Amino acid sequence: MSLSRYDIVVVGGGAGGFTAAQTAKTVYKDKSVLLITKEAKAVIPCAIPYVAFTIDSCDKALLSYDALRRIGVDVVVDEVVDVDREGKRVVTASGKSFGYGKLILAVGGAPSAPPIEGLGLRNVCMVYKGYEKVVELQKALREAKRIVIIGGGFIGVELADDLSELRKDVTIVEILPHCMLLNFDEEFAVMAEEELRKKGVRIVTGRTVKRILGKEAAEGVELDNGEKIPADLVIVVTGYRPYTELAKKIGLRTSGYGIVVDDYMRTSDPDIFAVGDCAEKRHFLLGTATPALLASIACQEARIAVLNLYGARVSRRIEGWIGVFTTKIGNLVLGASGVTERFAKQRNLEYVAGKAKAINRHPAWLPGGCEINVKLIFLKNGTLIGAQVAGYCNEAAELANALALAVQNKMRIDEIIAMQFGTHPKLTASPISNPVILAALDAYTKL
Amino acid sequence: MSLSRYDIVVVGGGAGGFTAAQTAKTVYKDKSVLLITKEAKAVIPCAIPYVAFTIDSCDKALLSYDALRRIGVDVVVDEVVDVDREGKRVVTASGKSFGYGKLILAVGGAPSAPPIEGLGLRNVCMVYKGYEKVVELQKALREAKRIVIIGGGFIGVELADDLSELRKDVTIVEILPHCMLLNFDEEFAVMAEEELRKKGVRIVTGRTVKRILGKEAAEGVELDNGEKIPADLVIVVTGYRPYTELAKKIGLRTSGYGIVVDDYMRTSDPDIFAVGDCAEKRHFLLGTATPALLASIACQEARIAVLNLYGARVSRRIEGWIGVFTTKIGNLVLGASGVTERFAKQRNLEYVAGKAKAINRHPAWLPGGCEINVKLIFLKNGTLIGAQVAGYCNEAAELANALALAVQNKMRIDEIIAMQFGTHPKLTASPISNPVILAALDAYTKL
Repeated sequence: MSLSRYDIVVVGGGAGGFTAAQTAKTVYKDKSVLLITKEAKAVIPCAIPYVAFTIDSCDKALLSYDALRRIGVDVVVDEVVDVDREGKRVVTASGKSFGYGKLILAVGGAPSAPPIEGLGLRNVCMVYKGYEKVVELQKALREAKRIVIIGGGFIGVELADDLSELRKDVTIVEILPHCMLLNFDEEFAVMAEEELRKKGVRIVTGRTVKRILGKEAAEGVELDNGEKIPADLVIVVTGYRPYTELAKKIGLRTSGYGIVVDDYMRTSDPDIFAVGDCAEKRHFLLGTATPALLASIACQEARIAVLNLYGARVSRRIEGWIGVFTTKIGNLVLGASGVTERFAKQRNLEYVAGKAKAINRHPAWLPGGCEINVKLIFLKNGTLIGAQVAGYCNEAAELANALALAVQNKMRIDEIIAMQFGTHPKLTASPISNPVILAALDAYTKL
Repeated sequence: MSLSRYDIVVVGGGAGGFTAAQTAKTVYKDKSVLLITKEAKAVIPCAIPYVAFTIDSCDKALLSYDALRRIGVDVVVDEVVDVDREGKRVVTASGKSFGYGKLILAVGGAPSAPPIEGLGLRNVCMVYKGYEKVVELQKALREAKRIVIIGGGFIGVELADDLSELRKDVTIVEILPHCMLLNFDEEFAVMAEEELRKKGVRIVTGRTVKRILGKEAAEGVELDNGEKIPADLVIVVTGYRPYTELAKKIGLRTSGYGIVVDDYMRTSDPDIFAVGDCAEKRHFLLGTATPALLASIACQEARIAVLNLYGARVSRRIEGWIGVFTTKIGNLVLGASGVTERFAKQRNLEYVAGKAKAINRHPAWLPGGCEINVKLIFLKNGTLIGAQVAGYCNEAAELANALALAVQNKMRIDEIIAMQFGTHPKLTASPISNPVILAALDAYTKL
């Protein structure tokens, strides 16, 4: 028979699928690995909000499937339309069939929108990740003059920041009192909003879009207070939903939050794993299913799935997603991991918050010196559950990542107060005034 | 009586003493805190190697005792010459007496040198931290034309890097096969040496200085192979030794490694604590006393001591020093924490090492993109025991700090492979190709 058989078949060519295939071939050198992707070319997902200005050509921002081929992964461009679980093979749109020993579904998600009137008009865009769609989006962004962005989350603010470089007339409409409020507390969100406003972006918060105006093409939006904002392009970035259609069709367990998986990313079929946007996610603190569609989580899950495909030599289970975010608005770098104070308050958690600022050079006047703001949220028992960072320097992003590790390691407040950091006058804050330690001390005095 | 009494008296105004006083007044707002320092002005210790060029004036690089005063710490400039443990008071050189409830000794250390002939000549300098001595050193460095630095550790290479900006004729003589080999493996040390050589520094390794030449003033050095190197300034930076004289005098237990302390930084007198260079340190992996005279460790110990002064609400013990180092040579940023592969090999540890490189932007051509090298050392049981980072960008320093947290948290290899990092195209590597995770995967394949 002409059925090709692979030890490991990965379906989906985004961040999760790419990482699954790459990790599988790295860890299990003797296994055959196939990646099936709908797209011959796929744009680096994190780069998509920057295609208006920063990313001059989509072809210069591609995931490199050749890099996978070089390490021995077979890559087939096709769409998987069915899975024969009994026969352990996938069936593609072009009628081909590939046998698998282990199957990893990384089929992603799709943008979702609230039921706004006018979503179907021309010049209303959602942010899809397929290559052709990104090229279309790029063209639309560059051609438009007046743009309304519905949704002030990460994609919305990053799009607005990039568009402002082209001096477009940009308005963000956000339903919450501030942009990015699911990931940052108000004082950090306000810093980001100030940067956007300085760059000429208009931000309307606490408002929803009642309808998109226009007959064939969008001409603007009407807000819930009646205000009309003219636009020749409306971008809807109000969220993503997991793609579960294939999983449902083949009888895997799914929920409203995605394909149901266990701590090892296994679906209800022990030979089928699911990772990334299509898989259900559990919150690290609440333990309940909550959405978290991030490339960094997809990559984490892909690696966990691969380590556990055959029962790993060193076992690893997912302990719920933390959520680690970094972004740059103008020259302001923001990072967050775990939960915000707003979240802790809403859930009636017993918590304390600590804050500090420090210059990341010592003496502070050395070149590159900038003030870094740190906020830490601890449970009353002393466990770190959230961290936020902001500063006008790129180093703040890796500082946020250090804090993400602290959250992931469930560090206690006294461990943070007594931790050791490398310090150098030209590179970091003084060991005496490290903002992370000072923020922990501030929280300690409130315990 | 005119005896002033304080709840907490800190002796020593360096990084450890400063941090102890600052933390004490922050954590115990109602306690009275006194800092006694020999120096009215003290230069930020990490800045001292940069006084030739980068730090134009020592007065612009001072620890701010005023910042301590502002939070309510009393600061007295005087030298503590005796402690009456029975009466719980310290006695100073000027004849004053201060009572204490708890005493924290942060009296530091002093530079040490091998017994080289000619150490007493004029124009032979060691690196002392006292303000007057630093000003003298600055003058000597600026006036000299040909400088030999004996010792290629951090202070030696940082001095050489800074001096090279003034186009001085600089030679480093290092006894080991490479500079900084106690903290970095050869491939990282070589990267640093290449930077120094590009900047015109001569590096002589695997050699010792037999004697310093000259009658009254140093005229050069003679190496063990007979080679003579002319110099009008010789800097000896071959190590530091803990200052234990006061502790011995008052009957505290000491060892060759410093004042003996328990896991809570308590000396053999339960009301006297010792922190920083003067205190004995235990290696996190070996568990044995080994020297580690670093400002960042001093600050860590100061905070641990303060949290445990009265029995802390959240207890904290030191689990041995990790050692976290960052430095910048030319534009190359290097960081290390825990142990090197060289160390693991010498101690016959069962270990694996993993390496990876990745560009810290995605797409890689975005501004600020640079390659970051990461090396990780794991015990065969999967525990991370060492990490090294190098790259031509300042962000590498905070990445090294994230890795220091991973070492301090005894992270397992599978936890690192599956950890979540915040990623952003303009700020960090892609989640697909994070060099830390890829280095862990490389090690994993060798387990």
